[in-house]
Amino acid sequence: MLCTLIGLSAATLTMFSFVPQIIRSLRTKSVKDVSPVTLFQFFAGVFLWIIYGILRRDPVIIIANAVTIITLSVLIFLYFKFDKGVK
Amino acid sequence: MLCTLIGLSAATLTMFSFVPQIIRSLRTKSVKDVSPVTLFQFFAGVFLWIIYGILRRDPVIIIANAVTIITLSVLIFLYFKFDKGVK
Repeated sequence: MLCTLIGLSAATLTMFSFVPQIIRSLRTKSVKDVSPVTLFQFFAGVFLWIIYGILRRDPVIIIANAVTIITLSVLIFLYFKFDKGVK
Repeated sequence: MLCTLIGLSAATLTMFSFVPQIIRSLRTKSVKDVSPVTLFQFFAGVFLWIIYGILRRDPVIIIANAVTIITLSVLIFLYFKFDKGVK
């Protein structure tokens, strides 16, 4: 019970971690200080975490990483949108 | 076995995700497009993931997040170093 509660809190914090970055990028329309390698490496890692969660039948890992991959996809989309705009 | 291998690959990718961002920030000495809220929210989340890993006795989760919290700490340090420099 406590374990699930801590897992859910951890998941909630990390899975929405990129939301403030999305808001900032939308506001400034600038992403030049953001590393695209970090974004893609994270994407690949989170994808594998989802597979790991499925294999370990751990719903917390699956849900947390599924939401993360969605927010991360939005950020990657914005990265290309605004990075292109600068050139 | 396959499960552990996928978990370790996932962990390796995500725990070193911030390394390219650290390299970029060191090179450009600029962090103005990086959201500090994202960094702190991530830090709090990763900290709770470590507790969750300990409670679930999952070494992959513990190690992955322990390394992440170290690289994230370096990035937070750089954020304040270079953010201050701009003002």
